[in-house]
Amino acid sequence: MTDSSQRVSQDPTSFQLWQEKYDAFKARGLKLDLTRGKPSSAQLELSSELLSLPGLGDYLGSDRTDCRNYGGLQGLADARILFSQMMGAPPEQVVVANNSSLALMHDITVYSLLKGTCDGNTPWSANGQIAFLCPVPGYDRHFAICKEYGIRMIQVGLTSDGPDMDEVEQLVQNDPLIKGIWCVPKYSNPTGTVYSDSVIERLSAMKTAATDFRIYWDNAYCVHHLTNERIEIANIIDLCARRGHPNRPFVFASTSKITLAGAGLALFASSKDNVKWFLARSTPRTIGPDKLNQLRHVRFLKNHQGILELMDRHRSLIGPKFRRVLDIFAEKLSDLSGVGWTKPKGGYFISLIVPKGCAQKVVALALDAGIQLTPAGATHPNSKDPHDCTIRIAPTFPELAEIAQAAEGVALSVRLAAQNMTRQD
Amino acid sequence: MTDSSQRVSQDPTSFQLWQEKYDAFKARGLKLDLTRGKPSSAQLELSSELLSLPGLGDYLGSDRTDCRNYGGLQGLADARILFSQMMGAPPEQVVVANNSSLALMHDITVYSLLKGTCDGNTPWSANGQIAFLCPVPGYDRHFAICKEYGIRMIQVGLTSDGPDMDEVEQLVQNDPLIKGIWCVPKYSNPTGTVYSDSVIERLSAMKTAATDFRIYWDNAYCVHHLTNERIEIANIIDLCARRGHPNRPFVFASTSKITLAGAGLALFASSKDNVKWFLARSTPRTIGPDKLNQLRHVRFLKNHQGILELMDRHRSLIGPKFRRVLDIFAEKLSDLSGVGWTKPKGGYFISLIVPKGCAQKVVALALDAGIQLTPAGATHPNSKDPHDCTIRIAPTFPELAEIAQAAEGVALSVRLAAQNMTRQD
Repeated sequence: MTDSSQRVSQDPTSFQLWQEKYDAFKARGLKLDLTRGKPSSAQLELSSELLSLPGLGDYLGSDRTDCRNYGGLQGLADARILFSQMMGAPPEQVVVANNSSLALMHDITVYSLLKGTCDGNTPWSANGQIAFLCPVPGYDRHFAICKEYGIRMIQVGLTSDGPDMDEVEQLVQNDPLIKGIWCVPKYSNPTGTVYSDSVIERLSAMKTAATDFRIYWDNAYCVHHLTNERIEIANIIDLCARRGHPNRPFVFASTSKITLAGAGLALFASSKDNVKWFLARSTPRTIGPDKLNQLRHVRFLKNHQGILELMDRHRSLIGPKFRRVLDIFAEKLSDLSGVGWTKPKGGYFISLIVPKGCAQKVVALALDAGIQLTPAGATHPNSKDPHDCTIRIAPTFPELAEIAQAAEGVALSVRLAAQNMTRQD
Repeated sequence: MTDSSQRVSQDPTSFQLWQEKYDAFKARGLKLDLTRGKPSSAQLELSSELLSLPGLGDYLGSDRTDCRNYGGLQGLADARILFSQMMGAPPEQVVVANNSSLALMHDITVYSLLKGTCDGNTPWSANGQIAFLCPVPGYDRHFAICKEYGIRMIQVGLTSDGPDMDEVEQLVQNDPLIKGIWCVPKYSNPTGTVYSDSVIERLSAMKTAATDFRIYWDNAYCVHHLTNERIEIANIIDLCARRGHPNRPFVFASTSKITLAGAGLALFASSKDNVKWFLARSTPRTIGPDKLNQLRHVRFLKNHQGILELMDRHRSLIGPKFRRVLDIFAEKLSDLSGVGWTKPKGGYFISLIVPKGCAQKVVALALDAGIQLTPAGATHPNSKDPHDCTIRIAPTFPELAEIAQAAEGVALSVRLAAQNMTRQD
């Protein structure tokens, strides 16, 4: 990535040229949406079988559970087996829930605030304002949970192989009110960062002042590869157990970007004690999840290999979209100093770095030209990107032709914003 | 209902006879479960179409919402229209969620504890221990939410037309820490009580010391009639609005006992401000519910008339079970003073009242004879029935022949427990 701390310098004679190109683009009156990491219709079609599954007369799990009736708080055994490998935990340590992994993260935070974790009976809300570490740039919905419940967010840097561990270790060893860290360890949102083994090892082994410190390990993109390299990362559950902190990791994932975004399954895995704690906390809340949707997924995905093959089909649909955006950025922006972007090997996003102080302007210019982007700042706690330089690009939802147009419009907006800034200097 | 405060008196020569009958029953080695209000397989079969709905290619709501993708926090518009009449609120004031209305009650309690309601920014957890009124006998899962979060439970009597309103009014007007009341207003769990218009009027109009007092109106059995009289009750949302307390009622229901117990839809309705508040509080938790299951229900149930017709089919399956239990109780227990039972016109339960101090003994005897009953006491806060006299009978799940056996076994257990008590006197 280009160093974004440098200021752009451009031939002032070219300003008019780019302004004209931008105006021409705007005149096309497009309506394009790159805001959220949503699967496209074509991706949803890959799972169209789910629309008529499990089918008449099919409602029994292999353990004779009637999936239509009440019960089964931990999720259908067949589903826990299906996702065991993906979650890196035995089926006994996997929970299969309803359609939102965000809801699991939220509920676990709320339970911890009101009731405390299994490592201590003191509710997190009992002894002053707690804090979470937030590697940035990161996922806005993680930060929104903290914001809602008054959890202080401490930014830490995200290096090319994960959170800046010197910073993390320094912070957690001194402050018992730091109770957690948000991690998207593979193909991170929005940078595509993959945590290295060494980072994961240090996260597992580090000393924390809080005895009930938790790693929120949101492995949302665990099988969401964009290249033919299926990157694997270290198993946080195993490592934490081996380093004497078995209850440290809460592992989350979902099938929202595997099967159907709104009608998939949310997944949780952790130590035996954490799972027991989670189920105990969930008991007053619900009699159990929608097991029929779990059976539907078992019938459709069949096994881990089935998941991988489906993800190959997703890759063939979204890989070209990512490549198109990257090609257009390379073509239109390579000569612009202070501008750079990530080239993710998986996940749903590209991070576009623009000169300091330009990101909001780029987003506004793009919007004016008919392209909706995630608000600048969304990648940071409280929506405040201190350098106003990070833009999250979500290329999956629009069709390929639209993506090309959108990327071109974004590139033109970047050039214009960067030039305006130069002219104002 | 027979007055349970009287002590039984029986011919002592008959003791041996009933003991022999009980022993003979026990020797049959049955395994019957009357613990929970679960639909039977035959009831679930009534909704078997859901197993293959919505069907290939069908995923768009009538407003063009793609039910497969993210979004739609309030629930699919078609589903909100479908359940509007049942919920007694316009679609704009209805929320359709995932499969558990208990989860809605839980989450709303948690939001109120941590964030406060829309009538005040003070979290319920901020100023000392709050309390809820609990009409008894009542629903154990309501009490479990209070217990989990340290909400004090204040018992109030349940008369034949609803909570004892003199008691309720007296309590709520003096104590600002009383924040709520649990109500199952129609075919109440476990007594079958239907709240009268006058009770509902008083609940709507009463003065409360807490400005953010809430009625948790769990209308779980709103269309669950057992006779050809479709009893309707007053509309709590309208009444509270008219009496100047629009935000007082939180109305809950679900299709768990309409379609599929574990794979139905949970429903919430309230004032505009409460709905807005609920959606704001839900935003950090989830991007939206499983809209595909909502579309499935729209396709299957079609409209309010479709719901009523389906409920007629349920009635034809479970009505005979209730009648059989009532017939057997009448045959075996009518001569026993201190014993009585409710004759519900809807819902899922019969309350069996046994002589004071006998309920636990009856449940133990029944279990010993192969019949699992809901634990005695479950109908009261903290599982403590002060008179140990209330037993909840759930006749829906077993087949009709089994129900007859179970009712006979329960009756024998009652006679034996009552006689033992007489002999010990």
